[in-house]
Amino acid sequence: MADQKHRGQIKQAPENFLSQDLIADLNENGMDDARRGFLRKGFMAALGGAVSVGSAANVLAADGDPVILEKQEWQTTLGKNVATMPYGMPSIYEANLIRRESPGLTRVSAASVAFTPLQGLFGIITPNGLHFERQHQGWYNIDPEKHRLMVNGLVKHNRVFTMNDLMRLPSVSRIHFIECGANTGLEWGNVAVPTVQYTHGMLSCCEFTGVPLSVLLEECGADLKKGKYLLAEGGDGSGMTRTINLPDVLNEAIVAWGMNGEMLRPENGFPLRLVVPGVQGVSWVKWLRRLEVGDMPYATKDEAVHYNDLMPDGLARQYTSIQECKSVITTPSGGQQLLDKGFYNVSGLAWSGRGKIKRVDVSFDGGNNWKIARLETPVLSKALTRFNIDWVWDGAPAILQSRAIDDTGYVQPTIKMLRDVRGTRSIYHNNAIQSWKVGSNGEVSNVQVG
Amino acid sequence: MADQKHRGQIKQAPENFLSQDLIADLNENGMDDARRGFLRKGFMAALGGAVSVGSAANVLAADGDPVILEKQEWQTTLGKNVATMPYGMPSIYEANLIRRESPGLTRVSAASVAFTPLQGLFGIITPNGLHFERQHQGWYNIDPEKHRLMVNGLVKHNRVFTMNDLMRLPSVSRIHFIECGANTGLEWGNVAVPTVQYTHGMLSCCEFTGVPLSVLLEECGADLKKGKYLLAEGGDGSGMTRTINLPDVLNEAIVAWGMNGEMLRPENGFPLRLVVPGVQGVSWVKWLRRLEVGDMPYATKDEAVHYNDLMPDGLARQYTSIQECKSVITTPSGGQQLLDKGFYNVSGLAWSGRGKIKRVDVSFDGGNNWKIARLETPVLSKALTRFNIDWVWDGAPAILQSRAIDDTGYVQPTIKMLRDVRGTRSIYHNNAIQSWKVGSNGEVSNVQVG
Repeated sequence: MADQKHRGQIKQAPENFLSQDLIADLNENGMDDARRGFLRKGFMAALGGAVSVGSAANVLAADGDPVILEKQEWQTTLGKNVATMPYGMPSIYEANLIRRESPGLTRVSAASVAFTPLQGLFGIITPNGLHFERQHQGWYNIDPEKHRLMVNGLVKHNRVFTMNDLMRLPSVSRIHFIECGANTGLEWGNVAVPTVQYTHGMLSCCEFTGVPLSVLLEECGADLKKGKYLLAEGGDGSGMTRTINLPDVLNEAIVAWGMNGEMLRPENGFPLRLVVPGVQGVSWVKWLRRLEVGDMPYATKDEAVHYNDLMPDGLARQYTSIQECKSVITTPSGGQQLLDKGFYNVSGLAWSGRGKIKRVDVSFDGGNNWKIARLETPVLSKALTRFNIDWVWDGAPAILQSRAIDDTGYVQPTIKMLRDVRGTRSIYHNNAIQSWKVGSNGEVSNVQVG
Repeated sequence: MADQKHRGQIKQAPENFLSQDLIADLNENGMDDARRGFLRKGFMAALGGAVSVGSAANVLAADGDPVILEKQEWQTTLGKNVATMPYGMPSIYEANLIRRESPGLTRVSAASVAFTPLQGLFGIITPNGLHFERQHQGWYNIDPEKHRLMVNGLVKHNRVFTMNDLMRLPSVSRIHFIECGANTGLEWGNVAVPTVQYTHGMLSCCEFTGVPLSVLLEECGADLKKGKYLLAEGGDGSGMTRTINLPDVLNEAIVAWGMNGEMLRPENGFPLRLVVPGVQGVSWVKWLRRLEVGDMPYATKDEAVHYNDLMPDGLARQYTSIQECKSVITTPSGGQQLLDKGFYNVSGLAWSGRGKIKRVDVSFDGGNNWKIARLETPVLSKALTRFNIDWVWDGAPAILQSRAIDDTGYVQPTIKMLRDVRGTRSIYHNNAIQSWKVGSNGEVSNVQVG
């Protein structure tokens, strides 16, 4: 089985290869850099192979050059039937674009992370098959007929809902990002994790569908004057429980069953999870089985020690759950390699738990000079925003950075600014500017600047 | 293997069942309609089963009622590892939500249609595994290293691009619907196709990523003063070729490789297809291998006879490629069955090849009275728009319709209005208002009204 080893003259990270013939790949892709510029900026357009003859169609170009378009075997034979795959899968040539567990990150794989391969993705929607996973005690194929959601606490009527009860309620659909609070966590210290899949891959963005939390709580007669806190309890063996600040999320939270048009995937909480836009992923409780309305934070096991901010004096700041404004360049990124000089489309993602992305700046010289990137539409609140920017690589070493600004005016900080306040021993809530170094050989690596 | 046979007290269409125990299902889901109203409008909230004891947790409600939440086996055991599926799949309980070929629609399955199961989907994004397929000579796993795109005709420089050449160009990402020009085609006559999967399921909506057509043509030095037409040629055995009106699409068309964040699926044109927002699906040429700029329509085999509008006098109107404003209620829809009276969230899709959806009206009495539906955000140009509306079913027969209006002011027509102009023997471009009849037994069927 072959594989798509390089895209846009960017060789993918080594773990994306099935074969290890790196040198052969490098050589076969050399380009003629005397070719005329692309967009008058220096794109070395490679006239694709196409020099063999045989069954080739020979077209005379307007400028007199013969240009040959080879005929391929799939043009002369009968292809596969429709619905050969009633539920479709990616091309066999994409077999290495998969979720990956970081070896050794945790002691057991049922309480670990599988990261989204951001380096190979486009746009803002994460396909469901590549949505990241953070499990605390593994995942289940839960029978939706058996699943229940209880609502209790400061409510007039305690309730237990079936999925059928919930799915006949008024529903909404909205596109939001979800990011684990521990995403980019190893970068607090001096660990420079090699690829963007592992530095930033606890990040996904989907269209979620479900009943608004406000509708559900109104139905149960919740006392929202006293009830400023919500306890969300998951149905897996970890007994995951999180306190959620109700006034912060009441207008936007969704008790969701749909993800990108279909039911949630089992590893992402099928049949029911809480969607809390802007809030760290651990609070998007999966296999949601209980919501309790209360008048004070619950200080559960999962929030007493985890998902809080360790300060330099050894104390921890609790309940800082909003994912602040952040961005990262995904192409090119660590572990990849530029195969020639010339024009590149540099692409990345920006997001903010506070609202919309207003602007993304990109630097090619480690933060000395900045240019404004193009934002792809739609730019949505608390969703990923894709940015792109033109770059002509001259072959000299370069340091690529992106810096996002959200519509509150907050500017994504440098790692130095974060460490000055919070030290180097935290795990959670690292939203620092990411630096990728491009070496003179084109190799891209993770470096910590400033 | 069990299955989710009903959602929100709506039984799915029979072909969504693995078992045929319909009567048992009906009986076990009877509800106590004396329960208090939901949203003060008549939702009969079912207190989910939860009456057995054993390992159940017993919570005393605020109003004194004991409410019991059963403990499930998945709460007390270790679940599956992360990345058990490096590329994830839907829950085993969703096994019947699949693309389906309409039996007998064509003589061979390599030149047929697999329809998207709209009746079970949410929001606007179609998951890639359920994107509809319309194949003319089957589909292929094309090796992206071998694939080429030629650009020729009224251009300064004929070019042959590799995928690597294309993927380093400036890219954009945008969400758009794609609809086959023959969608809803059988309804021109008196065939009332039973389910929305078969009436409207040649419809999907994804985020597409690629190089803007305008950038590619500029790079080749296209003469856009003379060159008002584009020939797009596909790489499959059918030799699919389509003329595209360049001025209409130049600002929006994309030569695309990405679909919902990942590479296109093989059956949808991997590694390259043309995305022509608002235009019928046949022009979104798959396995795109050649673009020719010309000064007149090409009148190819695929447009001389097919995808045009047969008029009552026997003549055909050609090159009417824009998909006009249209909508359909997907839940409830044909083949489903309402299992009780009371509150329902009626949900559907609206779209226009001319721009954004401005408003969707819904009627529950066959078009005599109309109410304005809620539109889910984002409302995007030439993308699906999800609408929802509250409905309390009183148990009497009802006829449900939706009517979309786009931002040009165009109002979706009735089937009678369309037939008055175009007769009953057309295949293509049927954007009529769809009527679903709800019988007094709750059964939903396709009826043609007006």
